[in-house]
Amino acid sequence: MLRVGVNGYGTIGKRVADALAAQPDMEVAGVAKTTPNFEAAAAHRRGYAVHAALDERRPAFDEAGIPVAGDLDDLVRASDVVVDCTPAGVGAQNRERYETHDTPALYQGGEDADAVDASFNARANYDEIAASDAEHVRVVSCNTTGLSRVLAPLEEAYGVEKTRATLVRRGGDPGQSDRGPINDILPDPVTVPSHHGPDVNTVLPDLAVDTMGVTVPATLMHLHAVNVTLETEADADAVSETLASESRVFVVPERARVAGPAHLKEYAKDAGRPRGDLWENCVWGASIAVEGRDLYFFQAIHQESDVVPENVDAIRALAGDADAAESVVKTNRALGVGS
Amino acid sequence: MLRVGVNGYGTIGKRVADALAAQPDMEVAGVAKTTPNFEAAAAHRRGYAVHAALDERRPAFDEAGIPVAGDLDDLVRASDVVVDCTPAGVGAQNRERYETHDTPALYQGGEDADAVDASFNARANYDEIAASDAEHVRVVSCNTTGLSRVLAPLEEAYGVEKTRATLVRRGGDPGQSDRGPINDILPDPVTVPSHHGPDVNTVLPDLAVDTMGVTVPATLMHLHAVNVTLETEADADAVSETLASESRVFVVPERARVAGPAHLKEYAKDAGRPRGDLWENCVWGASIAVEGRDLYFFQAIHQESDVVPENVDAIRALAGDADAAESVVKTNRALGVGS
Amino acid sequence: MLRVGVNGYGTIGKRVADALAAQPDMEVAGVAKTTPNFEAAAAHRRGYAVHAALDERRPAFDEAGIPVAGDLDDLVRASDVVVDCTPAGVGAQNRERYETHDTPALYQGGEDADAVDASFNARANYDEIAASDAEHVRVVSCNTTGLSRVLAPLEEAYGVEKTRATLVRRGGDPGQSDRGPINDILPDPVTVPSHHGPDVNTVLPDLAVDTMGVTVPATLMHLHAVNVTLETEADADAVSETLASESRVFVVPERARVAGPAHLKEYAKDAGRPRGDLWENCVWGASIAVEGRDLYFFQAIHQESDVVPENVDAIRALAGDADAAESVVKTNRALGVGS
Amino acid sequence: MLRVGVNGYGTIGKRVADALAAQPDMEVAGVAKTTPNFEAAAAHRRGYAVHAALDERRPAFDEAGIPVAGDLDDLVRASDVVVDCTPAGVGAQNRERYETHDTPALYQGGEDADAVDASFNARANYDEIAASDAEHVRVVSCNTTGLSRVLAPLEEAYGVEKTRATLVRRGGDPGQSDRGPINDILPDPVTVPSHHGPDVNTVLPDLAVDTMGVTVPATLMHLHAVNVTLETEADADAVSETLASESRVFVVPERARVAGPAHLKEYAKDAGRPRGDLWENCVWGASIAVEGRDLYFFQAIHQESDVVPENVDAIRALAGDADAAESVVKTNRALGVGS
Ligand SMILES: NC(=O)c1ccc[n+]([C@@H]2O[C@H](COP(=O)([O-])OP(=O)(O)OC[C@H]3O[C@@H](n4cnc5c(N)ncnc54)[C@H](O)[C@@H]3O)[C@@H](O)[C@H]2O)c1
Ligand SMILES: NC(=O)c1ccc[n+]([C@@H]2O[C@H](COP(=O)([O-])OP(=O)(O)OC[C@H]3O[C@@H](n4cnc5c(N)ncnc54)[C@H](O)[C@@H]3O)[C@@H](O)[C@H]2O)c1
Ligand SMILES: NC(=O)c1ccc[n+]([C@@H]2O[C@H](COP(=O)([O-])OP(=O)(O)OC[C@H]3O[C@@H](n4cnc5c(N)ncnc54)[C@H](O)[C@@H]3O)[C@@H](O)[C@H]2O)c1
Ligand SMILES: NC(=O)c1ccc[n+]([C@@H]2O[C@H](COP(=O)([O-])OP(=O)(O)OC[C@H]3O[C@@H](n4cnc5c(N)ncnc54)[C@H](O)[C@@H]3O)[C@@H](O)[C@H]2O)c1
Repeated sequence: MLRVGVNGYGTIGKRVADALAAQPDMEVAGVAKTTPNFEAAAAHRRGYAVHAALDERRPAFDEAGIPVAGDLDDLVRASDVVVDCTPAGVGAQNRERYETHDTPALYQGGEDADAVDASFNARANYDEIAASDAEHVRVVSCNTTGLSRVLAPLEEAYGVEKTRATLVRRGGDPGQSDRGPINDILPDPVTVPSHHGPDVNTVLPDLAVDTMGVTVPATLMHLHAVNVTLETEADADAVSETLASESRVFVVPERARVAGPAHLKEYAKDAGRPRGDLWENCVWGASIAVEGRDLYFFQAIHQESDVVPENVDAIRALAGDADAAESVVKTNRALGVGS
Repeated sequence: MLRVGVNGYGTIGKRVADALAAQPDMEVAGVAKTTPNFEAAAAHRRGYAVHAALDERRPAFDEAGIPVAGDLDDLVRASDVVVDCTPAGVGAQNRERYETHDTPALYQGGEDADAVDASFNARANYDEIAASDAEHVRVVSCNTTGLSRVLAPLEEAYGVEKTRATLVRRGGDPGQSDRGPINDILPDPVTVPSHHGPDVNTVLPDLAVDTMGVTVPATLMHLHAVNVTLETEADADAVSETLASESRVFVVPERARVAGPAHLKEYAKDAGRPRGDLWENCVWGASIAVEGRDLYFFQAIHQESDVVPENVDAIRALAGDADAAESVVKTNRALGVGS
Repeated sequence: MLRVGVNGYGTIGKRVADALAAQPDMEVAGVAKTTPNFEAAAAHRRGYAVHAALDERRPAFDEAGIPVAGDLDDLVRASDVVVDCTPAGVGAQNRERYETHDTPALYQGGEDADAVDASFNARANYDEIAASDAEHVRVVSCNTTGLSRVLAPLEEAYGVEKTRATLVRRGGDPGQSDRGPINDILPDPVTVPSHHGPDVNTVLPDLAVDTMGVTVPATLMHLHAVNVTLETEADADAVSETLASESRVFVVPERARVAGPAHLKEYAKDAGRPRGDLWENCVWGASIAVEGRDLYFFQAIHQESDVVPENVDAIRALAGDADAAESVVKTNRALGVGS
Repeated sequence: MLRVGVNGYGTIGKRVADALAAQPDMEVAGVAKTTPNFEAAAAHRRGYAVHAALDERRPAFDEAGIPVAGDLDDLVRASDVVVDCTPAGVGAQNRERYETHDTPALYQGGEDADAVDASFNARANYDEIAASDAEHVRVVSCNTTGLSRVLAPLEEAYGVEKTRATLVRRGGDPGQSDRGPINDILPDPVTVPSHHGPDVNTVLPDLAVDTMGVTVPATLMHLHAVNVTLETEADADAVSETLASESRVFVVPERARVAGPAHLKEYAKDAGRPRGDLWENCVWGASIAVEGRDLYFFQAIHQESDVVPENVDAIRALAGDADAAESVVKTNRALGVGS
């Protein structure tokens, strides 16, 4: 039983904790949180040991009636592996502390690639990471995870000459009411290509990927408008099958009449999924089209949850407990991914 | 075991079906749906007998691979009670059909009060409806339900001289991507007072309630800014306790740091509630204030789900199976309301 | 000719500068800006002397090709009066500097009432301010200005027993793309009553006004849902006439089919108004309703521009150049208010 | 003096009317409108003869106090050319009526290409249309106009091998408060490539253009994420100059710190442009990038106004009064395009 601590219990952290708790080979050593808000109370009700990430906030937890299991060092000591889910940039600052305790750690996509030993995506480079000495590993961001999951199989099946993708990004997560824009469509970043292409290269080094980022006033999911110039011709049906055979890609059938992310979320809620999460890339079947060697499709990426199964797999890769295929099947089964 | 059919399986219908299935004394006789989309497929996967609401659409269900259990008349025949959850105005047209089969029916808040025998809210008039001959009963709308749940206890505890409420309404439900506005704040209706006050009077006849409606570009919940001039003075703490003792009112504590509906939904998802539903009125504890006899507070109303437990109770009121207190406890326990 | 400097050239500042330039008895001494962006370039193209508000940014203006007329002290020296239009809270810090130069100044609604000698609204207290020694005067905020303009005449005509208003506020101005929320309806502030009522009392001291603030994802205008309990009965037509006779209140006729702020802005753009500004309160005629002594109506407030004519008047009040009636007519005529 | 009638006085029609009125060689014969709302009143105040587009609505105009100059046939009779600006699909139905009067007509982008004799864009095919017999001509849509204006010069300067563009479209115009989505990012259409590429081919027949459409909850402008594989290499500066030398393309300099469409609209309003219109494509200079022969850039397209100067030019092309260069200069000067 691998004891895993979660530092940072927000959008990603709470999902990772629940995903760990659902695994047969892992248990949640505890979670660390800065603020004793409703999310901290929920963590306590779920039975997680709640640690105060900042010592000075401990009295606030007491006032809020949330028992504190210890501080952050206590959490690291109690953990075989730590998953750092703190805000972008904070993770890199925490690395030293984990190293002090000689505890391997995962970081999220908000950290720079060069702040860690290696970057990870289960479909792209699980076995490579498992075979390496890397102890401080970054699970790539939601957008990069989404791109890697489709580009890896397309590269294998047809070869990828070049990918051009426009990432239409949600402005904030559903729970983030202090983010905007309210009524704008922002080139973000204005400079092209965006950092997302190079980020794909941290897990799939040899792919040519140019990306453009746009931010819009919506919260549910990102939408990717993807063009892939293949090396060999393929028809749309073949591509559809290639993608559908991936366990973390859901090819949405036309008959489902899914107009967009809002319907996808409705679908996930109807299916009884925890928090209405969609761990899989959602590719519109009706959008898959090929013009010559140019493949096009739309996919929606649930930013809050697509990296969650990847974090679970990354822990096994670090721990050396399973190979890629075993881990992915185990994770998927425990969470209900692909079903 | 009461067999209940659900006609119309959209936002309200699917929630009502699941709520019925969770009751110890009810079972879902089947659901009727017009379009074989992803929601119909989900109904089938949940094990509900799916009926084609429109005969001419039956082939479409076949094509979509969704087995059809029969037509709408078959569903009515199989049901002791029907809950009509079709779009506003359609329910009234369906009444004749239910009468032909001599089957009592519930309708939703989109129907006019005079299209039915009586209007219902569990907190306001359960026993009255149970004692009456009413067979075609309307569960009042989400906003009216929300107002009734707080006004009934305030009237009992302090007397209500006059209520003035501004209802800041969500423009559409999360799954409705064809509704607006995108960037506007609409007086809706422009005329004042709005129909919501008189609608409260269909279940609480003697209350003076003036309402103003506003529609805004948000989807999660309605927000009510409520003023109640009480007949007797009361301090904010007393009012807070009065409201908190209601099983379908949740007084949000200040320490939870809940800024608005988005946080409330996050809370519901963290609590593992189905579809992230919030069946209770959510009153901000920090907002409860009294100036003289003028009480003020904010409450958020989850339009998709607050009427769901009311529908369950209304069935028991129609069937004469339980009194108000028994039914409410049974419904709450089965769904997890208030916990 | 009164020389007026404008410190802070954003949403309010640029409109104030143009309004001053349009007056027969004023001229723009110059404007001070922190950042040499497109707005600074526009100020230069309009012929305003552009001052660098922060010395260290001067080189940035040079790089951007925007000639710098001097620093902030130069601007104050060149001005008989300064209108401070810097972000909320900055104005109060600037007061000392204006005092050093012995230059009277106006401040905006983002400053606290007690940071200034007096607060101002032309309809509420022009003559009082003109008669006083106040040299550092705050023009009350957009919402407070909007409330004062209707409450003053209602008090005079019918007496106001109590006002209760829900202010449904735009989340950010049209040009502010970094503000939210994207999909929420926020009690803001959560505590009731909000600060807006007491702010009305800085210019209309004896009115009983309770306000509740709500923030929504829209940018065009605020919408006020207003209830006024009058001291004497009045019918809706009389109230409509009372409001329509105010030069800065526009009672929108029903036949215009104006659904909300977006239509109002369209109307202003069709009328050729600069920046599509609506300096007047826009009260929906169809919404004016009276129940007993309870008056209700909706009004929309253009946050970017309603305080602009008030700033012009406040300058004359400070300078002692005209009485209220004269100034208001002069300002209105120069800008086109009410036409 | 060419007498031009405008049938349909909404978003496009009112702008076209004002643009015609500003031309030295044209006059507005009148405008036809279906509903006597605030826009009709504005037309009357501007001095346009208002015709009732539907006979049965004439009394409604009388009631609203808007004098009616005649019916639609009267307008056509009074016009040398009609510009049809009715909603998508209505224009095609009107063609027969214009033909009855033997009056040439322009149509807008909402009509199908095969409902007209020819499609028009000033930069792409003015001289061709002028030389042809076409009498019923469609000005291509806002998005197609936006693409044509940059692809024509790129084709001439470098050759275009293939264009791939993602069109992130505004969900509705600022004045359309009944449109959505509120919180979604819709593939629209879901099928790829979208109709926009073939539409470009109606004015630039030989270009390879694949487009993907996405609709988002914003109203101000469309944003295009454009990739053009050039036939010859070019560096970013050269492309920037190529685009900047186009009179209807505005290359936004980096120093202007324009983050997105909201800032662009602010810029237009600061510049005193009527209705804050932006007739030009707005290309972010900082986004222009070249990787090998792959050119990338972002451009924002003001859907309400970019087709307006094109309509003016198309009238001259129909009337045979000027060649492309003359007309474009005349139009630009009269409106202030490019200044
Ligand atoms: N939200 C997404 O869409 C998304 C998707 C993929 C990856 N990520 C990445 O995941 C990481 C976490 O993002 P999130 O969206 O979950 O953020 P979040 O803000 O929702 O949660 C962060 C958590 O960390 C806590 N925290 C804040 N400061 C801290 C500190 N100094 N020390 C310890 N804990 C602190 C907060 O209390 C909160 O519980 C980031 O690197 C982000 O880039 C986010
Ligand atoms: N959504 C809310 O916020 C809300 C809240 C409270 C009450 N209500 C009321 O509940 C009722 C249902 O609303 P909803 O939001 O669930 O609507 P919905 O559109 O989500 O669902 C309606 C369902 O009825 C089906 N349907 C459509 N036309 C039909 C017809 N002619 N015959 C049979 N079925 C038909 C649709 O397929 C769909 O399954 C309305 O009266 C509404 O006013 C809605
Ligand atoms: N925008 C509104 O809706 C609105 C309405 C009424 C009143 N107000 C009040 O008007 C004031 C200005 O608000 P705004 O919306 O115009 O703000 P803004 O941010 O649009 O403009 C502020 C300007 O001040 C400049 N500035 C920033 N920091 C400065 C500093 N330290 N010194 C000098 N200049 C500085 C900025 O460059 C900018 O030009 C605030 O008090 C605000 O509360 C705003
Ligand atoms: N709005 C845009 O972004 C945009 C951009 C480019 C092209 N277009 C195209 O321009 C055309 C007009 O669009 P719009 O946005 O101006 O529409 P709109 O709805 O704003 O205006 C249409 C006008 O036509 C009138 N009208 C309605 N029905 C009519 C009828 N049966 N006969 C005569 N008049 C009628 C309406 O009263 C209104 O004045 C459409 O083809 C549209 O596709 C629109």
